[in-house]
Amino acid sequence: MRIGVLTGGGDCPGLNAVIRAVVRTANGRYGDAIVGFNDGWRGLLEDRKVQINNDDRTDRLLTKGGTMLGTARTNPDVLRDGLGRIRQTLDDNGIDALIPIGGEGTLTAASWLADEGVPVVGVPKTIDNDIDCTDTTFGHDTAVTIATDAIDRLHTTAESHQRVMLVEVMGRHAGWIAMNSGIASGAHLTLVPEVPFDVSEVCTMIKRRFQRGDSHFICVVAEGAKPAAGSFHLQEGGMDEYGHERFTGVAHQLGVEIERRIGKEVRTTVLGHVQRGGKPTAFDRVLATRFGLHAAEAVHAGQFGQMVALHGTEIDLVPLADAVRQLKLVPQDRHGEAAAFFG
Amino acid sequence: MRIGVLTGGGDCPGLNAVIRAVVRTANGRYGDAIVGFNDGWRGLLEDRKVQINNDDRTDRLLTKGGTMLGTARTNPDVLRDGLGRIRQTLDDNGIDALIPIGGEGTLTAASWLADEGVPVVGVPKTIDNDIDCTDTTFGHDTAVTIATDAIDRLHTTAESHQRVMLVEVMGRHAGWIAMNSGIASGAHLTLVPEVPFDVSEVCTMIKRRFQRGDSHFICVVAEGAKPAAGSFHLQEGGMDEYGHERFTGVAHQLGVEIERRIGKEVRTTVLGHVQRGGKPTAFDRVLATRFGLHAAEAVHAGQFGQMVALHGTEIDLVPLADAVRQLKLVPQDRHGEAAAFFG
Amino acid sequence: MRIGVLTGGGDCPGLNAVIRAVVRTANGRYGDAIVGFNDGWRGLLEDRKVQINNDDRTDRLLTKGGTMLGTARTNPDVLRDGLGRIRQTLDDNGIDALIPIGGEGTLTAASWLADEGVPVVGVPKTIDNDIDCTDTTFGHDTAVTIATDAIDRLHTTAESHQRVMLVEVMGRHAGWIAMNSGIASGAHLTLVPEVPFDVSEVCTMIKRRFQRGDSHFICVVAEGAKPAAGSFHLQEGGMDEYGHERFTGVAHQLGVEIERRIGKEVRTTVLGHVQRGGKPTAFDRVLATRFGLHAAEAVHAGQFGQMVALHGTEIDLVPLADAVRQLKLVPQDRHGEAAAFFG
Amino acid sequence: MRIGVLTGGGDCPGLNAVIRAVVRTANGRYGDAIVGFNDGWRGLLEDRKVQINNDDRTDRLLTKGGTMLGTARTNPDVLRDGLGRIRQTLDDNGIDALIPIGGEGTLTAASWLADEGVPVVGVPKTIDNDIDCTDTTFGHDTAVTIATDAIDRLHTTAESHQRVMLVEVMGRHAGWIAMNSGIASGAHLTLVPEVPFDVSEVCTMIKRRFQRGDSHFICVVAEGAKPAAGSFHLQEGGMDEYGHERFTGVAHQLGVEIERRIGKEVRTTVLGHVQRGGKPTAFDRVLATRFGLHAAEAVHAGQFGQMVALHGTEIDLVPLADAVRQLKLVPQDRHGEAAAFFG
Repeated sequence: MRIGVLTGGGDCPGLNAVIRAVVRTANGRYGDAIVGFNDGWRGLLEDRKVQINNDDRTDRLLTKGGTMLGTARTNPDVLRDGLGRIRQTLDDNGIDALIPIGGEGTLTAASWLADEGVPVVGVPKTIDNDIDCTDTTFGHDTAVTIATDAIDRLHTTAESHQRVMLVEVMGRHAGWIAMNSGIASGAHLTLVPEVPFDVSEVCTMIKRRFQRGDSHFICVVAEGAKPAAGSFHLQEGGMDEYGHERFTGVAHQLGVEIERRIGKEVRTTVLGHVQRGGKPTAFDRVLATRFGLHAAEAVHAGQFGQMVALHGTEIDLVPLADAVRQLKLVPQDRHGEAAAFFG
Repeated sequence: MRIGVLTGGGDCPGLNAVIRAVVRTANGRYGDAIVGFNDGWRGLLEDRKVQINNDDRTDRLLTKGGTMLGTARTNPDVLRDGLGRIRQTLDDNGIDALIPIGGEGTLTAASWLADEGVPVVGVPKTIDNDIDCTDTTFGHDTAVTIATDAIDRLHTTAESHQRVMLVEVMGRHAGWIAMNSGIASGAHLTLVPEVPFDVSEVCTMIKRRFQRGDSHFICVVAEGAKPAAGSFHLQEGGMDEYGHERFTGVAHQLGVEIERRIGKEVRTTVLGHVQRGGKPTAFDRVLATRFGLHAAEAVHAGQFGQMVALHGTEIDLVPLADAVRQLKLVPQDRHGEAAAFFG
Repeated sequence: MRIGVLTGGGDCPGLNAVIRAVVRTANGRYGDAIVGFNDGWRGLLEDRKVQINNDDRTDRLLTKGGTMLGTARTNPDVLRDGLGRIRQTLDDNGIDALIPIGGEGTLTAASWLADEGVPVVGVPKTIDNDIDCTDTTFGHDTAVTIATDAIDRLHTTAESHQRVMLVEVMGRHAGWIAMNSGIASGAHLTLVPEVPFDVSEVCTMIKRRFQRGDSHFICVVAEGAKPAAGSFHLQEGGMDEYGHERFTGVAHQLGVEIERRIGKEVRTTVLGHVQRGGKPTAFDRVLATRFGLHAAEAVHAGQFGQMVALHGTEIDLVPLADAVRQLKLVPQDRHGEAAAFFG
Repeated sequence: MRIGVLTGGGDCPGLNAVIRAVVRTANGRYGDAIVGFNDGWRGLLEDRKVQINNDDRTDRLLTKGGTMLGTARTNPDVLRDGLGRIRQTLDDNGIDALIPIGGEGTLTAASWLADEGVPVVGVPKTIDNDIDCTDTTFGHDTAVTIATDAIDRLHTTAESHQRVMLVEVMGRHAGWIAMNSGIASGAHLTLVPEVPFDVSEVCTMIKRRFQRGDSHFICVVAEGAKPAAGSFHLQEGGMDEYGHERFTGVAHQLGVEIERRIGKEVRTTVLGHVQRGGKPTAFDRVLATRFGLHAAEAVHAGQFGQMVALHGTEIDLVPLADAVRQLKLVPQDRHGEAAAFFG
């Protein structure tokens, strides 16, 4: 067979490990030819690709962050308009099956291609852990690990200076990184997009803690956290004088507001891109490897229109259409577990 | 309520995080008194204990390896003979419920105490991942992470010197640490207790790899790995001239045998106790915290004779009797997944 | 003897290790009483203190970030006005010698107190490495290590997305963290306060690299880096709409400018406080321990008005007055070494 | 010019970083051709080599452990007999200067070649830190860091089980790794080759600590540590029943002896090869890069027969003959500093 592979969306630790596992299984075991398309769906639109063999160079991908194929976000409209070109590229390269590795956007496109008859097996990728129908995906554990290490470090600084510290982590729609790193690092509060926060309550919690004689307060803030209506006005998507939207992060704005209200020094750290780069954790390497192996096996079993998924300790297949129907948000009871450790 | 807590068996990253979560939930939320018994079941036999409150000191336990209560292995016979004393200690301290945190031995004792009418909720602990009826337990991810880091490092040495390297990791009965760290680190072979190995086949694999022009060979060996009958004679439990059984590790013996057979330099590293000490990973801190929270909640719900367990993303309760019936070994299909990457 | 200890200025990995070494040497070996003053010089102004003994709790300080004594920056004028109170506190506590551990501000105050006849032995502390008359100080290696780890991670993201990435690290006056982490992580450019940068040249370097077919560009920016006159207008100390100066970091502004000029996506990460928190590296623990030991010995040798310092492999004493005369900046030839690897 | 490079002796983190710096400087800046000889001096004896250019592949070497050239130990006699062939290889490849990177053995050979008129600039490499005339070399900081991380982990296990733990680290002749990791990790005793140990005294220290109520005892043992005459009989170079000398490590034998004498459970961990593999620390990457840069510059300045060396913050040149005259052992006063923290 000839199998196409691509990686789409933001980069994520473990992408290369999936590619390696697909290649070792499909090329190494079955003798398939593996064609890697560059820069996500663009590679299919523009027929840019590279042959990947089961050699020493591929083997070393296991521990390498990022993606050897490059990645890009593609406008869904561009993709729909480009269906003809995608089919053409697949035909020109004699591709029998396609394994797109990506997040919600990439998998939605994959699901739509499957509907159009393209033989597709998807692999879920998201550091945010917001893809449905799978317990988790690779990348998330690495992101949580990096965030936790950072918050571990911030604890000692906050203690020494008796400070309030806010740490903004990734998670535009889902608060999994914030919640898990918050639990893991013993943060005193975690704000997630799923539960709008009230600044007054946040200030009350901070004051209570210091009144009790505690030395510091660490709050983890998902980048998508939102104030409750009437709580305070978040400058959404606002531009600074340089026309840059990145300066208006929720943590920075919240920090200023807290400082204003309680008159205590607040420091804000935005972890940013370090959360999505570098070596994957052992957990993510194992999961990515299993995902790649099972995706290649699914191709050989002709199980198209599916996505590999983790359920308990097993790798299963779930319909792509089910997986992309909605984002997997932090449910109420899981937030309750985390909240048990606030304060 | 008055709740007793103890940690039994080998130490494990995350034990302190469980204790902290029990205390924060039971003492912090419900106002229970928490009595920690020292050194496993011995603390109950000898009425040695400490009161643990939901204070700053307890809060810092989250990231600390080991166990603040101390731990010990206890002979089951001693335990059976000591039932009277255990009851007495529980009575003397007015204990309403007991939360033993431990591995197969500790939980078997817990199950047996539950049969005797002691109100018990168990928490599974094992770096080996060999406790049944739960997807995994805390400690295992940390052990795999440490082993993977070490094997990552050994790769570059092995390459530079074109060597065969054997790495012995923990796992007397179950090969989970070996299998997972082998997959995560891209080892070329992993030997687990569940699948007896044939030295000739091992040598053939090594020779094939070097003949192909590859530069090195890394083999992960579980401490409980066993040669197939007739393969080679493993000095089991043998004593060296110092009367020490630790020198006769399987990896050392296998290394000598491979060197003898293929005439290539072999180096053996025994990772040893570093696998079970120090800071837990973020994954293990989250799991340990959730286990502790749910154990305390189970006590308040009166669900005794149960063990907290991870199934998918949820924490459930399973009967202790079911959990200790057998060890959870690496099943055939999971070993097959790993074997797909050998060579 | 009775020896006072305090930590001043920003917190720094290794402060606790110095305190531990002072206590183990002075209390453990010589039987001195150690009085720790809280929150820097404030502790002396307000007579807030704690007795520190050579016990297990002190011993555990070795690996702990931050400072058990708390720290604060103190206005030099406040300090001068408070000389009477400081003398009073020293008298009231029967302090025979004082060991202030801190950066330029703290040591300048120490030097001035020494001139006033207070028996002082200083210990230099700075993650920025900008204290003169010593090869380096503890904290710097940890900061460089953390920054290097982060930049290692950013490389893979930048490569996968073919991006320009700017990383702002600490260093208001001296570029040591930027320079050392830039060399260690293979950054393509490093901007330090000592050498004003020209935005046009930066853009030319970036364009040249991408024209050569390279996949990404990483630039490390010290927070104190400044554009050359006429290069571009940096909003110095400007306030954003929240009255917050932190939004106007040089890296953010430079990123916007580069994006505007070359039309390529630029991402900026500000590492922030994670650089100064958490466990010290092994190097910093050894150095901090040696500094603490030698400071205690200097007290016993009556060598006051001095600061412990590293020269080569030896710990020496240098006059405090010499050490605080000027900041130790990156000299021209060291910047030249780093620049040899730009591009 | 045409410059030859080789790496000899045991592998060491930072070797690749030196090679990269030589190539970037000599090839990238001066346009020299760089010829890498494989497997140490053997590459010169057998004319096995590879051209290395200043490209992306070379650039990535910075963080990679091991050596891209391979390495081997070569018998000095073989080398002397092979002088003719070495000259021939140098002539055949038109080599104008040779940069051997290695430890005492490699540099001794380099010194001898320099005497024979071969234009040589040496680069010192040793994780053991035992090369004279330089403050330190790359590799040592990484080894100390790895050992310290491991001992940090062993502390919590030892505490939980109230155990004596021995940790054997590298250092056959010099105790630098043991001493520095012992100080950094707060070990209670460190045994180095430079100071023979008395088993009775070791046992007395252990007993005293437990009598004081302390919970554990960690002893770092350099592999070359030796008992004092009459203390106990160390099986030197003895063979076990498999003809293997590795089983007779000093830590294992000492552990058995301590157990026998004080009747307390002792656990021994031999860190082994993990100490010399994998990513170098930031410190070692900076030092290796500076060494490589200065070695290339020394070649262009015609300063042959020299070795690059670190003195304070500067890279200097010292005569190879001086550097290899004797090993740099732990001096008495440095051992005294460490001993101040024993017990």
